[in-house]
Amino acid sequence: MKPFFQVQRLHEVHARAAALARGPAERVHLTAASGRTLAGDLCAKTDLPGFTRSTMDGYAVRGRDTFGASEAAPAFMEMVGEVAMGEVPALHLEPGHCARIGTGGMLPKGADAVVMVEHTRALTDGTVEVTRPSAPGQHLLSADDDACAGQLMLPAGQLLRPQDIGLLASLGMAQVEVITRPKVTILSTGDEVVPIEDEVRPGQVRDVNSHTLAAQIRAAGGEPIACGLVSDDALALREAVASALPRCDLLLLSGGSSMGVRDLTAEVFLSFPGAEMWVHGVAVAPGKPFIWVSAEPGHLLGLPGQVTSCMVAFHLFVEPMLERWFGRTAQAFSRFPRQTATLTRNLPSVPGRQEYVRVRLGAQGEGWRAEPIFGKSGLIRTLVQGDGLVCVPADSEGMDAEAEVTVLRFP
Amino acid sequence: MKPFFQVQRLHEVHARAAALARGPAERVHLTAASGRTLAGDLCAKTDLPGFTRSTMDGYAVRGRDTFGASEAAPAFMEMVGEVAMGEVPALHLEPGHCARIGTGGMLPKGADAVVMVEHTRALTDGTVEVTRPSAPGQHLLSADDDACAGQLMLPAGQLLRPQDIGLLASLGMAQVEVITRPKVTILSTGDEVVPIEDEVRPGQVRDVNSHTLAAQIRAAGGEPIACGLVSDDALALREAVASALPRCDLLLLSGGSSMGVRDLTAEVFLSFPGAEMWVHGVAVAPGKPFIWVSAEPGHLLGLPGQVTSCMVAFHLFVEPMLERWFGRTAQAFSRFPRQTATLTRNLPSVPGRQEYVRVRLGAQGEGWRAEPIFGKSGLIRTLVQGDGLVCVPADSEGMDAEAEVTVLRFP
Repeated sequence: MKPFFQVQRLHEVHARAAALARGPAERVHLTAASGRTLAGDLCAKTDLPGFTRSTMDGYAVRGRDTFGASEAAPAFMEMVGEVAMGEVPALHLEPGHCARIGTGGMLPKGADAVVMVEHTRALTDGTVEVTRPSAPGQHLLSADDDACAGQLMLPAGQLLRPQDIGLLASLGMAQVEVITRPKVTILSTGDEVVPIEDEVRPGQVRDVNSHTLAAQIRAAGGEPIACGLVSDDALALREAVASALPRCDLLLLSGGSSMGVRDLTAEVFLSFPGAEMWVHGVAVAPGKPFIWVSAEPGHLLGLPGQVTSCMVAFHLFVEPMLERWFGRTAQAFSRFPRQTATLTRNLPSVPGRQEYVRVRLGAQGEGWRAEPIFGKSGLIRTLVQGDGLVCVPADSEGMDAEAEVTVLRFP
Repeated sequence: MKPFFQVQRLHEVHARAAALARGPAERVHLTAASGRTLAGDLCAKTDLPGFTRSTMDGYAVRGRDTFGASEAAPAFMEMVGEVAMGEVPALHLEPGHCARIGTGGMLPKGADAVVMVEHTRALTDGTVEVTRPSAPGQHLLSADDDACAGQLMLPAGQLLRPQDIGLLASLGMAQVEVITRPKVTILSTGDEVVPIEDEVRPGQVRDVNSHTLAAQIRAAGGEPIACGLVSDDALALREAVASALPRCDLLLLSGGSSMGVRDLTAEVFLSFPGAEMWVHGVAVAPGKPFIWVSAEPGHLLGLPGQVTSCMVAFHLFVEPMLERWFGRTAQAFSRFPRQTATLTRNLPSVPGRQEYVRVRLGAQGEGWRAEPIFGKSGLIRTLVQGDGLVCVPADSEGMDAEAEVTVLRFP
């Protein structure tokens, strides 16, 4: 007898994903680290900038010497030298002294402030008139303004943005430990599906899912391994999975939306040693016929064949696993910005399952309106024309026009 | 006498950027097209899916034969065959006939609807009991549901998302015309600046801008060419620019925030044949000392040397040029999602210039609060700790605590 599987709730699937192990780390050069994920906590090894720097072009002074200075009653200072960029100034400022300094220059001993050049007049005899007071500390970065030695600067799991790359550069980290990209194999099935390069005959369609999944995997930080089409029979499918499994961390098989193929997928997945059925169907639309079999060394995932369902299922089920691989929270739609908007019309829904509806966004006064795009989940245009998704909760019979909703915007 | 340059408003700089020419196109394979920009309008060459398909597992029927069918009074249909996936069915349904069909199968002649298998019972004698009516068109995709031949599907300038890749795949476009990546040379100056691999001595700092700019250029779709450090003298600078200029579309020189270097930068840029000063200073903070010299064949841009100023200046000035290169509107912060939030405290500002303030976002009830991060623009941590930027308009003396602001969120 075929085993009976209970359709699960989305949060149960995410709880499974949250228990997965983090991926291994590797060292990469900083020039290749943008968009990668930091493997460990990053602490500053030294103070930054490490010395007191001027933030302006002007004169290094002792602040108290400039107190009360004004256009009418300037302070007269004696110019005793110039700070060379990148060098430790040999100068030591005595009361009444000043020294020329450029932006980024190191403050000489004795000085505690900088006066902007705009508030000075250099006379020919080496005297400088200062026409505004400068308080101690003014126009300076102190030695640990950017970082104190030992301070936590970035946590493990941080997706490295350009500014984070800048921080690593300023700390002199030419190499950085990041989480490896998970290898994700893509297989498509369906006797009606042909490679995109082929002529399609009536009754056939092109292999869209291999291409959308590859782009989604790449955007989520993974490395897609596209293995093309496999025919809808147990032997061919088992062979394809067996050959891919040892070389990947996750295996995605799309195309199993017809019942026969779904049963076949589950049967083939479970035929591997140590295989365990974790999920077989989720109370969500689109994406219901999702299959998750845990095997060795990777996980085997069956995704729906309908193009739109397959894309949404990736975000709902695969993305949380990848987030967890990178040491982050197992979250769906992790890179989708959230946008509050007003629904333009009623959105009926079947209670008992979460539903993800494609919407188009339009500006409305100060805010946004979200217009549902109706169309079956086999239609790619519903995603192409859409700007994002709205989730109708499982306990709801739908949402009313004018309701305020959160739109998951396509990145 | 040195020419006198007028500080410009940001919109004037953007107007300049808006007049730039679009970049040339190149053909790439679809597997490399995600994240690239479509060069021309994309119209469907054929109808999609091109034939009438079932969206369910079940039976193809003539809808009218099922009218009034119920559990109590099922319609009895004669099973006359099965639709093979990917093939044109040879069947022609007569009244009272039905044929087995899987999801994605081609509807046979004579049929106009599909009954879900869940609403049928197959008897052993080849009769099928249908327990629910199916209206003509039900559970079907019609031949042009996804696209009509000739229909505009994606406009030129579209940044290709995974779903757009899916559309191209479904149309069989294994090759696609995209805009080339602009080549952007990066040079850093500053006698106090050393390569990140080097030991820093007191008074020195590492070359952060080369690394942040490279990451920013890549994120904006360009190809960075990092040329490293040049010393602060006219001859070396001219040589470095002369050698890079013929091989790039834009050249970024960072490090000219001290007055001497800024003057030097302008002087060197203007020494090239056909060079024309377009911008020399913008009423914006950070980013004021921006220099734009139009030359042949590329544009020469001077960016501030302070790490944070340099990053913000990239978004304000360089990003609009790159957007325009891709045939889109010359827009700053184009990939930054917008988030409405409430300011946590007063934000004073100098009237007469736009100011971009780093903020941290925190959830507050249903909404968000934006907390300004105070710190000088030489500090990279203000961007690392920040979640985005708030713009204080030029005609404002600041914004009050509790004011509603739009945060440009870091992507």
